[in-house]
Amino acid sequence: MNKNGKIYVVGIGPGDKKHMTFKAVEAIEKSDIVIGYKKYIELIEDMIDSKKIVSSQMKKEVERCEKTLEYAEDGKVVALVSSGDAGVYGMAGIMIEVLLKKNSTVDIEVIPGVSAANASAACVGAPIMHDFATISLSDLLTDWSLIEKRIHCAGEGDFVITIYNPRSKKRQEQIVISREILLNYKSKSTPVAIVRNAKREDEEIVLTDLEHMLDHNIDMFTTLIIGNSKSYIKGGKMVTPRGYRI
Amino acid sequence: MNKNGKIYVVGIGPGDKKHMTFKAVEAIEKSDIVIGYKKYIELIEDMIDSKKIVSSQMKKEVERCEKTLEYAEDGKVVALVSSGDAGVYGMAGIMIEVLLKKNSTVDIEVIPGVSAANASAACVGAPIMHDFATISLSDLLTDWSLIEKRIHCAGEGDFVITIYNPRSKKRQEQIVISREILLNYKSKSTPVAIVRNAKREDEEIVLTDLEHMLDHNIDMFTTLIIGNSKSYIKGGKMVTPRGYRI
Repeated sequence: MNKNGKIYVVGIGPGDKKHMTFKAVEAIEKSDIVIGYKKYIELIEDMIDSKKIVSSQMKKEVERCEKTLEYAEDGKVVALVSSGDAGVYGMAGIMIEVLLKKNSTVDIEVIPGVSAANASAACVGAPIMHDFATISLSDLLTDWSLIEKRIHCAGEGDFVITIYNPRSKKRQEQIVISREILLNYKSKSTPVAIVRNAKREDEEIVLTDLEHMLDHNIDMFTTLIIGNSKSYIKGGKMVTPRGYRI
Repeated sequence: MNKNGKIYVVGIGPGDKKHMTFKAVEAIEKSDIVIGYKKYIELIEDMIDSKKIVSSQMKKEVERCEKTLEYAEDGKVVALVSSGDAGVYGMAGIMIEVLLKKNSTVDIEVIPGVSAANASAACVGAPIMHDFATISLSDLLTDWSLIEKRIHCAGEGDFVITIYNPRSKKRQEQIVISREILLNYKSKSTPVAIVRNAKREDEEIVLTDLEHMLDHNIDMFTTLIIGNSKSYIKGGKMVTPRGYRI
């Protein structure tokens, strides 16, 4: 019995509710149950007070999706929330994979949101105005050799690079190695933006360069944006020109 | 005199107003003047009826930004609207460059939105769940040789690739050449999503592969998502696994 059940996978944006879409809020309002990692649920708690909230611990992603499917198969409308855009290193893929594995025919809709790269870019100016590569440095699920290869390729292609998960308590060296790789392709003066808690109350912004970036605080709440050969910092803004004659 | 003037560069998302953020609507409501390309202004016209609307032709981007700055220097609050995320091939970079060139101290705020890549991905499942490269095939402002190089590098790095501006009436061959380059690195069976007018009324979705992608309609309203070596299509969804054991 699942004829009325439905799953919304909802990207809630960077954190401040003002950066959620109307569609995301509508989906949460329509849902009988809201499921998500504790920290993200807290960000939107006041809009779901009367609902059944199921919050979950980090690193229980698959179980969270299985639970979501169970509720939906039982006829419930369920919102599975994810920070940023649910389709970028978020819950959308896992949820669909669980659905496919169980051969479920439950209706599912992915609601896109403002991703961390886009939010962080807006905080510092316009650094991803041209071709960019998005790379996560987390090697929990991906071989480090593949991540290294991608950093080489992104450097060689003179892409702007947005880096997710640059460093955690247990993963300290990946960002150090990544910077060394990029110095083969990019000059030391390449602009770098370090954005912590983008578009949240405790937002922190550092504009620096590839030479000095490791002098600053980088952790799991940080997104890095490393410029291409034409990016520059001026007047407190980081910009990558598209090529217009100004 | 500019002490009250302000510029909001507003990403209005893919088109359907439901995918705008609250912050984007708030900025438009706060503004004395709303400026944008005619087609985008039409999408949000009903929320700005009493304002002074300045709509503009395509390819007048620099003039549009100069006009925006003039109004703001004159003490007005101005919303410069851009489709998708204003910071991704949008108006944010040009606006900041114009501001810097004129040594203006007018207050500027970039409001991020849901970019075409994220909207298109949500339409078809979860294809950009892992590292991805975003490339525009428009060579109006960028040397084609650099675009070709980036396609090579993105292929070699086994990135998922989201392609903006794949084809226009005048640019027919770039997508043909891009596909040929990618076939050096990716198999013919690599999944490809062709999304036209993502999250608009007349949305069209095709799920195909690298071998057959050119059999389908591709134009300037289309975003392409080309998978990595692990992407797959199943049950009408395109997914790129992050690596979880499901």
